[in-house]
Amino acid sequence: QRAASGPLLDEISLWPLPQKFQSSAVAFKLSPARFQIVQAKQSSAGPSCSILENAFRLETFSQLVYEDDYGVNNINKTDISDFPRFAHRGILLDSSRHFLPLKVILANLEAMAMNKFNVFHWHIVDDHSFPYMSRTFPELSQKGAYHPFTHVYTPSDVKMVIEFARMRGIRVIPEFDTPGHTESWGNGIKDLLTPCYSDSSPSGAFGPVNPILNSSYDFMTQFFKEISTVFPDAYIHLGGDEVDFSCWESNPDIQRFMVQQGFGTDYSKLESFYIQRLLDIVAATKKGYMVWQEVFDNGVKLKADTQIHVWKGRPQYQDEMAQVTAAGFNALLSTPWYLNRISYGQDWVNIYKADPQNFTGTDAQKKLVIGGEACLWGEYVDATNLTPRLWPRASAVAERLWSDKSVTDVDNAYNRLVQHRCRMVKRGIPAEPLFVGHCRQEYKGL
Amino acid sequence: QRAASGPLLDEISLWPLPQKFQSSAVAFKLSPARFQIVQAKQSSAGPSCSILENAFRLETFSQLVYEDDYGVNNINKTDISDFPRFAHRGILLDSSRHFLPLKVILANLEAMAMNKFNVFHWHIVDDHSFPYMSRTFPELSQKGAYHPFTHVYTPSDVKMVIEFARMRGIRVIPEFDTPGHTESWGNGIKDLLTPCYSDSSPSGAFGPVNPILNSSYDFMTQFFKEISTVFPDAYIHLGGDEVDFSCWESNPDIQRFMVQQGFGTDYSKLESFYIQRLLDIVAATKKGYMVWQEVFDNGVKLKADTQIHVWKGRPQYQDEMAQVTAAGFNALLSTPWYLNRISYGQDWVNIYKADPQNFTGTDAQKKLVIGGEACLWGEYVDATNLTPRLWPRASAVAERLWSDKSVTDVDNAYNRLVQHRCRMVKRGIPAEPLFVGHCRQEYKGL
Repeated sequence: QRAASGPLLDEISLWPLPQKFQSSAVAFKLSPARFQIVQAKQSSAGPSCSILENAFRLETFSQLVYEDDYGVNNINKTDISDFPRFAHRGILLDSSRHFLPLKVILANLEAMAMNKFNVFHWHIVDDHSFPYMSRTFPELSQKGAYHPFTHVYTPSDVKMVIEFARMRGIRVIPEFDTPGHTESWGNGIKDLLTPCYSDSSPSGAFGPVNPILNSSYDFMTQFFKEISTVFPDAYIHLGGDEVDFSCWESNPDIQRFMVQQGFGTDYSKLESFYIQRLLDIVAATKKGYMVWQEVFDNGVKLKADTQIHVWKGRPQYQDEMAQVTAAGFNALLSTPWYLNRISYGQDWVNIYKADPQNFTGTDAQKKLVIGGEACLWGEYVDATNLTPRLWPRASAVAERLWSDKSVTDVDNAYNRLVQHRCRMVKRGIPAEPLFVGHCRQEYKGL
Repeated sequence: QRAASGPLLDEISLWPLPQKFQSSAVAFKLSPARFQIVQAKQSSAGPSCSILENAFRLETFSQLVYEDDYGVNNINKTDISDFPRFAHRGILLDSSRHFLPLKVILANLEAMAMNKFNVFHWHIVDDHSFPYMSRTFPELSQKGAYHPFTHVYTPSDVKMVIEFARMRGIRVIPEFDTPGHTESWGNGIKDLLTPCYSDSSPSGAFGPVNPILNSSYDFMTQFFKEISTVFPDAYIHLGGDEVDFSCWESNPDIQRFMVQQGFGTDYSKLESFYIQRLLDIVAATKKGYMVWQEVFDNGVKLKADTQIHVWKGRPQYQDEMAQVTAAGFNALLSTPWYLNRISYGQDWVNIYKADPQNFTGTDAQKKLVIGGEACLWGEYVDATNLTPRLWPRASAVAERLWSDKSVTDVDNAYNRLVQHRCRMVKRGIPAEPLFVGHCRQEYKGL
């Protein structure tokens, strides 16, 4: 039981912790009617920049406000000097294994902003469904979505996601993963996928994108031309992970092509052949690209500004981070942050302890680490359970990517995260509990 | 793609599977305006029995109805002869580790009815909080709940839960667990708990209910007198699990009592001494009782109709079930059904495979198995994540307890459970997905 007066320090638990923070016991009461934010004369914000103006209701300020026992909003005199440790702080959501209704995506963008995430990695399509409605190739979602009308993202849906994110300082990076993970693409586009063979005749099954047909590259050229205009971000994620070679190996046309090209039986060379041409196609749209680590591992020639997304080898990611940065590429970490994987108990602790710069390398290598992403793959997740499964576990990633490297005290983090989680619940995000207890304002009224 | 006409057999997936079931291809269309249920002349239902009358909108019938591609409700001519394999088919919810708002409890009672569960085991209080508002001892929740007004179950809340459950054929069995798991009781009732000692003086901490004071038994007499009238069910769950002896061992008064009684240093004898007196107190209220298995394991003398709740030894429960039934007691299984424990992937399969009669014993022993309960302990669960974590995993328990022993085909169960889960989502229960895919009607409209 605490006294009814005085600052409730446990209620100004900031998350993620700012770089520099100095609070005092001087408390001000806030009046909803008279409160306003004023810029310093030297500020670059103002009527000329609406985003920065809006951003002044930014997250840190709102977290400083606490409600006392009389329901009055208070704020203590505080000086904060803040900046993120890493520039790329992302969340991957998968809208293919299960379709995610727009409101689920928007609610999670809101939660991302509360946690200072700034990248929404939209793994929008995959083997199981193709919900992205393309203007150039409408048959992709017409035949590849779970349902052509109810389980698709229309152009205006996509625009809304991008704008909703932009107003919260969040970039939207779409992923169109090829040549694997493309089963749903094949429903709408004839001859795009490789026909698999069984006993020297087509089995009826299809494999990765067919890398030996010019039509495949013509399609990709048109498709990524559209994508590069629909998504304004400077980067596109091109996937490139988990290509299964068995279908290519079974196909006599592919076998002939391998001989012609002198690839022998090394199908990773064929994969690289495809990826190389795809990267050239996307580079022509003036976009940068992110790829999963296999593309780097296979020795594909990459533009210098390519970002390599490290995801394999759980729980060991150190060697790959060292190799990627030793080769001079930007690296992004996700290996320890596959939040779709769940276990009983407080699994946020291991999530919190992982550090993207925790590998053996030079300072120059460490500087090539641009950040990381928490991934919530969709095999077991849809609108019914996504938000509590993601939050507050993703918040642990948020602090790792934002706060100073020295912020590693798990007990201190626990206490702040409990409060931060209650703040999310209060604002309508059903973040699950860390452990036993309750939130002061979780259920208003009787 | 299926034809637009004809019965959609995948949409009449019954769960749990009835004992006998004969469907035909003869389909009837249902008109909302003209539909009615008529009893056979020999039926005991009718205006004289409102519960049975209401129950005719029972679950199985509603599952037979399917919507065709034109939005018309259909039902095929079907004969069903059904009865449950086990009489006791329960769900345990824990409202102490986290307070569960009334609407969460009611929604889950609705889901229980959809799955033919018939017992709500309400683990209403525990160490962490005491949300039950007692008329006799209001200070229990006043000082023991997380919040005395917002995080409590008032007498009318309790009445509503009982009535809501009754109308769905569900019994409410409250658990008031003693002498352990009682930390929150001590806030409101002076001298109820044992003072722990450190270096021959009280440490300020408290242990289990103090078993050597008459005042403890006087309190229990009054308290369970109230409970026996508030909860109409014939049974009360008295707990009795996980009693920590270290505090009793530290207390000189307890030590002296042990000597007087000739218990030596066997504190399980002291525990049995307490339980024995408690059982006599509750027996005087004319209620039957359920207890956790430790009470049986410790050799406490029990009434013949006592139900022993088996929960320890995951994943091995066979020996305990054999011993309990060999001693002639009714046994209830929960060991394989601790649904609070989660793991990545399709963990419903192991839940589904467990069978309460899977132990070595006589037919007479097998008949003493009255059923089981799925338990969702609350350490990591509250209103934000309870429902998707419980469903459809609890549905796997539901079929095990209802359907014939021979119903064990996991592939067949998967297909029906996917449909059943979609049916729950359609009716507003956010049951999580089993795996990739979608529900036809999960998100109405665009």
